[in-house]
Amino acid sequence: MTQFNYNSLFAERAPITTRGANRHATYDFAVAYPDPDTLPLTGLADALRVALEREGRDLAYYPVSAGYPPLRELVAEKLQRDRQMDVSPDDIILTSGSGEAINMLIQALTNPGDVLLTEEYVYLGTMRQMRLWGANVVGVKCDNEGIIPEALDETIRAQTAAGRRVKFLYTIPTFQNPLGWTMTLERRRRTLEVCASHGVPVMEDDCYVDLRFEGEDVTSMGSMDDSGQVLYVGSMSKIIAPGVRMGYMVAPERVRERALSFKSGGVNQFAALAINEYLRSEMYEHIDEENQALRVKRDAMLAALGEHFGNRATWSRPEGGLYVWLTMPQGTDLASFQEQSFREGVGYYNGTMFSPEGNGANMARLCFGHPTAETVSAGIAELANIFERNGIFSG
Amino acid sequence: MTQFNYNSLFAERAPITTRGANRHATYDFAVAYPDPDTLPLTGLADALRVALEREGRDLAYYPVSAGYPPLRELVAEKLQRDRQMDVSPDDIILTSGSGEAINMLIQALTNPGDVLLTEEYVYLGTMRQMRLWGANVVGVKCDNEGIIPEALDETIRAQTAAGRRVKFLYTIPTFQNPLGWTMTLERRRRTLEVCASHGVPVMEDDCYVDLRFEGEDVTSMGSMDDSGQVLYVGSMSKIIAPGVRMGYMVAPERVRERALSFKSGGVNQFAALAINEYLRSEMYEHIDEENQALRVKRDAMLAALGEHFGNRATWSRPEGGLYVWLTMPQGTDLASFQEQSFREGVGYYNGTMFSPEGNGANMARLCFGHPTAETVSAGIAELANIFERNGIFSG
Repeated sequence: MTQFNYNSLFAERAPITTRGANRHATYDFAVAYPDPDTLPLTGLADALRVALEREGRDLAYYPVSAGYPPLRELVAEKLQRDRQMDVSPDDIILTSGSGEAINMLIQALTNPGDVLLTEEYVYLGTMRQMRLWGANVVGVKCDNEGIIPEALDETIRAQTAAGRRVKFLYTIPTFQNPLGWTMTLERRRRTLEVCASHGVPVMEDDCYVDLRFEGEDVTSMGSMDDSGQVLYVGSMSKIIAPGVRMGYMVAPERVRERALSFKSGGVNQFAALAINEYLRSEMYEHIDEENQALRVKRDAMLAALGEHFGNRATWSRPEGGLYVWLTMPQGTDLASFQEQSFREGVGYYNGTMFSPEGNGANMARLCFGHPTAETVSAGIAELANIFERNGIFSG
Repeated sequence: MTQFNYNSLFAERAPITTRGANRHATYDFAVAYPDPDTLPLTGLADALRVALEREGRDLAYYPVSAGYPPLRELVAEKLQRDRQMDVSPDDIILTSGSGEAINMLIQALTNPGDVLLTEEYVYLGTMRQMRLWGANVVGVKCDNEGIIPEALDETIRAQTAAGRRVKFLYTIPTFQNPLGWTMTLERRRRTLEVCASHGVPVMEDDCYVDLRFEGEDVTSMGSMDDSGQVLYVGSMSKIIAPGVRMGYMVAPERVRERALSFKSGGVNQFAALAINEYLRSEMYEHIDEENQALRVKRDAMLAALGEHFGNRATWSRPEGGLYVWLTMPQGTDLASFQEQSFREGVGYYNGTMFSPEGNGANMARLCFGHPTAETVSAGIAELANIFERNGIFSG
């Protein structure tokens, strides 16, 4: 077989992406999956049948580029009610997961060499997309209340002084991935102010907001802005299932009309029909059920950490979402040890994977969403065993 | 309300895309929709329920980037059986419609300024994507047997001599959009040869191939190549429904690993589950039913054109697919008249929309897939009326 030669044909900016192996450790705390036992499978199947009977013939049309209008109406109503945002269905574009929304906005706003700001640890899918389009990703110092406004201001000034253009700040203010905290109201306000003073928009990724099982909601940054500074991104992956690939953006028209160029057709109408039909009757009931399940799992993880890690580490105590952020003493190398831990049965993602600067080797994200509470407990105990027998606890 | 200023923030290469109005004329021959009456709605709903019961819990996982493995197996089997292609599931990436597959391959292979070749009239979605990534789109002369090999050779030589890099040829060899012909076996062989002699790969878009209601299949270009020269793209939009957004690519590993970078996550697992389950039991039966419906509509369109356009125009007689290509005498301006015709009740797309060089103002694509046969007949009669009363027939 002659091999056709593509060497001189590839685009300069096309990197090689190897197909992920989708490996799962016996105890998988690495990848952020929701609870499989509360997936609304029967509800979705029933909803799809009803919706197809009513309007299935419209599947013969190519979906409108902004996506199925009734689902955009539902999202607008939900954002008004739950996130205090003044939005209409026309402000919304449905996307293939929130990942597509983020990707479209990055492409609309980024020239190679531009600076995109993130929290000091950031969702790695977003960081990968930013770099694909040539961005310099720069992390901003945070504490447990969120982004530190003075650090944000200083970072923007330093980047600008160095001749680089800061295009936007990407933030997950609620149940931050991977850190788990929720940014306070005051910090949200200050973050918007600092960015506004430099002409920098804020991309608010609110994909975990419905997964609150404790404490009080903090309103969206989108609700605190009436200038169009906030580009808001949300997702159905956490309240329905990742496999339905349904997310959305809310953005001013002048941004949407640029972002739309980077979308391959409308979203899956089939999934949109089922989701819309299902959520109109079952949304809050389903979210409650899911959050009860997640709370039990979080509690199991916190209890197991207390029992097995005691004073040998610290960790976050999230009021929602899917993650606990583990911090071991300085000098502990969870980065080098990650593959070994996986082979011995416990998967985690170490901090350097989330850090634009490669920091955080002594930290790790532990996801409690997918395993049962019993598996969470057993897995944390096993992680402690693995650390013990490999000398990780001794530094 | 202060307007946040995005003027200096947009990426240089981000064009403005206005949201399509998705207007439909009373008689809509413009947009390529399939038959709504043979959509397998009940079959899909049933299939989804069965699949969700069996493996719905996997929706909690993010789909693998290449897409749901059982559906890739089914596609591989289908391509072996129907298109004589030697492919394995691992050679396949499922995509959000064939549009995403085409878009990913364009991005993997195109630097701004590169030449991408197409037939002299080409699917406008592909042309738009090619230009979005900075390509010079150049049409190659065709006749009723397909691409003219000598014209292809000459075009590649001329572009190369002018210092431009020809990156690939995009072709729809079966039921070409918009021209309707099927490229002969000999022309397929010669097209591959000419391209190979210049080191140019061929992207074969086979999205209409199942919609044959007359005549004999011509094998795929993919089956005639064992060097990896052919990048093959297919779609479920025509055999299930556009709204399910499911397509695929078959490409050598070194191309797939570049193309994957430009994909936002795996395809919709929810749709993939339903499609896989449905097609495994009903595929050929469903395609037969659909093609019987399409044949009746095509016949209605051809008969109505004979009756109302007589010797005032010529038109193609496709053996499958969704289009008739109408050619009016030189000098007829269907481009300027298109909006007026729409307002008077009949929608079509004129030739200039499909031509990289803006040729074909006296031509139009007429889609017969979506309206009923009666509506097709009445619509063609009405188009003749509209042409008559607006002086289009007189040139």
